[in-house]
Amino acid sequence: MKFTVNRSAFLKKLKDVQLAVSVRSTIPILTGIKLIADSQGIKMTGSNSDISIETLLSAHDEKASLEIEEEGQIVLQPARFFSDIVNKLPDDQFTVEVKDREQTSITSASSSFVINGLDADNYPHLPEIDTTQSFTLPVNLLKKVIRQTVIAVSIHETRPILTGVRLMIQEGKLKAVATDSHRLSQRVIPIEGMEGLSHDLVIPGKSLQELTRLLDDTLEEIEVAIAENQILFKTEDTYFYSRLLEGNYPETDRLIPETSTTNVTLDAQVLLGAVERASLLSHEGKNNVVKLSVKDNSVEITGNSPEVGRVNEQVAYNDINGEEMEISFNPDYLKQALATFGPVEITVKLISTLRPFVLVPTEDTNDFIQLITPIRTST
Amino acid sequence: MKFTVNRSAFLKKLKDVQLAVSVRSTIPILTGIKLIADSQGIKMTGSNSDISIETLLSAHDEKASLEIEEEGQIVLQPARFFSDIVNKLPDDQFTVEVKDREQTSITSASSSFVINGLDADNYPHLPEIDTTQSFTLPVNLLKKVIRQTVIAVSIHETRPILTGVRLMIQEGKLKAVATDSHRLSQRVIPIEGMEGLSHDLVIPGKSLQELTRLLDDTLEEIEVAIAENQILFKTEDTYFYSRLLEGNYPETDRLIPETSTTNVTLDAQVLLGAVERASLLSHEGKNNVVKLSVKDNSVEITGNSPEVGRVNEQVAYNDINGEEMEISFNPDYLKQALATFGPVEITVKLISTLRPFVLVPTEDTNDFIQLITPIRTST
Repeated sequence: MKFTVNRSAFLKKLKDVQLAVSVRSTIPILTGIKLIADSQGIKMTGSNSDISIETLLSAHDEKASLEIEEEGQIVLQPARFFSDIVNKLPDDQFTVEVKDREQTSITSASSSFVINGLDADNYPHLPEIDTTQSFTLPVNLLKKVIRQTVIAVSIHETRPILTGVRLMIQEGKLKAVATDSHRLSQRVIPIEGMEGLSHDLVIPGKSLQELTRLLDDTLEEIEVAIAENQILFKTEDTYFYSRLLEGNYPETDRLIPETSTTNVTLDAQVLLGAVERASLLSHEGKNNVVKLSVKDNSVEITGNSPEVGRVNEQVAYNDINGEEMEISFNPDYLKQALATFGPVEITVKLISTLRPFVLVPTEDTNDFIQLITPIRTST
Repeated sequence: MKFTVNRSAFLKKLKDVQLAVSVRSTIPILTGIKLIADSQGIKMTGSNSDISIETLLSAHDEKASLEIEEEGQIVLQPARFFSDIVNKLPDDQFTVEVKDREQTSITSASSSFVINGLDADNYPHLPEIDTTQSFTLPVNLLKKVIRQTVIAVSIHETRPILTGVRLMIQEGKLKAVATDSHRLSQRVIPIEGMEGLSHDLVIPGKSLQELTRLLDDTLEEIEVAIAENQILFKTEDTYFYSRLLEGNYPETDRLIPETSTTNVTLDAQVLLGAVERASLLSHEGKNNVVKLSVKDNSVEITGNSPEVGRVNEQVAYNDINGEEMEISFNPDYLKQALATFGPVEITVKLISTLRPFVLVPTEDTNDFIQLITPIRTST
């Protein structure tokens, strides 16, 4: 294998596949990046036990000014080391050449590295996924759905299934749900033209976070294909594979209350500011608890940590209706939930001091919901 | 104590004194910030066992629009908690009021905190330093001297005196030296109008690093006053105190070679680029060693880590004179030394493979020197 290429065009692609590479791996070859040079261009692959990313730097990409003198393949590792070298090379162009026994030279102007590569034949094969049943989603909407739900995945491995986001596709709709059993996030979006499609799967939250890091905002559409234990997200020149979580995801529909006794409408950002301030105090104290009090004509956020002090804030609201209510909760859950709404009016719906409460956009109370379980307090 | 003040003007000062505050301290009150409100304005103090910073937010500062309703003092802690609160308050202005038993309210618009303060009478007193024998230095020059020498202080506490920078003031000159016994940095600058002054002291390297963080580039001059075991750096409204290190600093003049057998002149940044690249490989390998080879008509940087690979770079040079020479060293020492020169031509002066080599600016070979001890290698 021998090719010469523009350094920054190569680096951009390299950074993409590097997202999937772990520093440590039980399979040592996976700490590297696989490169294949052929008539199409340079295909790069990075992978860990959860996700794999494969991308093509096309031979027709003008910015890359790619010249392939000899086709071939190699694995260079560790990935970070290889990309640091490319990043620091002195010239705009550089050349990679595989020599005897996987020894690979990387040269640019008067600088020359020779590093020990690995035989690419030993690199694990990526899953093969049939894309005939695929569907497409707008990239921005997919990223939004992920951001809105992934906050609620569990970070504990005690119930592995809860570390993922469940996707249910049915009757032309995609429903994404996550819960760590203290809070729940759910978003529903339409999938046009795929009314016959039906799927129910759980994707690791970490995979989805890496996917949002990979997806450039300039991309418009992404293709999604699902196999038995893998999902593939595909853009023009990049494939993102994630394994799926096995197991039964708990039924969550019954957790979402259908009625409420108290409704407050207010600006999500205004409430977020108040909760952020109150959480400064609760984080400093022993119990990370903040209280929301809804009265006839006031909405109040309070916190009390005797060893530190107390905080009290009147929150501007648009409307209150229903009974007076006090409810205590972990302010971090509310902060994260509020941050997913952006600057819109939301409705906080409460049932009782001990029952979960929900936040929904006032404009659209069905398709997006954040639910938070209260904390029982002695006061 | 009660005052109302502009939030961003207060925060700017608060961040300055916060530099001196440690998260943990054997003296609990030092985790806080001391505030004194009097006719001058708000005086703030932060301190740890090494440094103390005191600053005044002046009653005459128009941007601060400070209104003092009641003079007094308080310690608020932890410092980070207090500054986070001020940082997150909703309005441009806020009010601090000390109530019963050091309970202190912090209010801004509809947000109100009450936090437990501490009696400021229990806050340790800062050292008193006679400033009649003080001298002044241009701030930019002082920061440069610190940056150029502090890289060579030891990070090990086995010989505490080497964790500091030695300052010798004599005959109208200030000489700053640091060495960790593997390398040495020395810079000499003139101090005008203070020919009679004579001092020899060692300042902790960490203190000097905090000082450079404190000193804004907009400041022109700084006043320096020295007491038996303390040094004070004073700008218009801020006092920075550091303790001095006790003990005998080793004699370093004899370490600096007076002759050389090989001299190479080249651009500091060009050599830095080559050494940075070579260190990528040496960091990945077992031994962090890089070699400089000077021949009749080439300057070469090489590295060889059999388990990883090898690197080789021809370095562009302006002039070579003297004998051929090969010398091996820790590339991190050379990188840090080169970075202190900026984009200028330097002369690398070598004596032998086993003797320390030095770097000096070609334009001024006496006042600034970086010395590096080679590593003996088997090859």
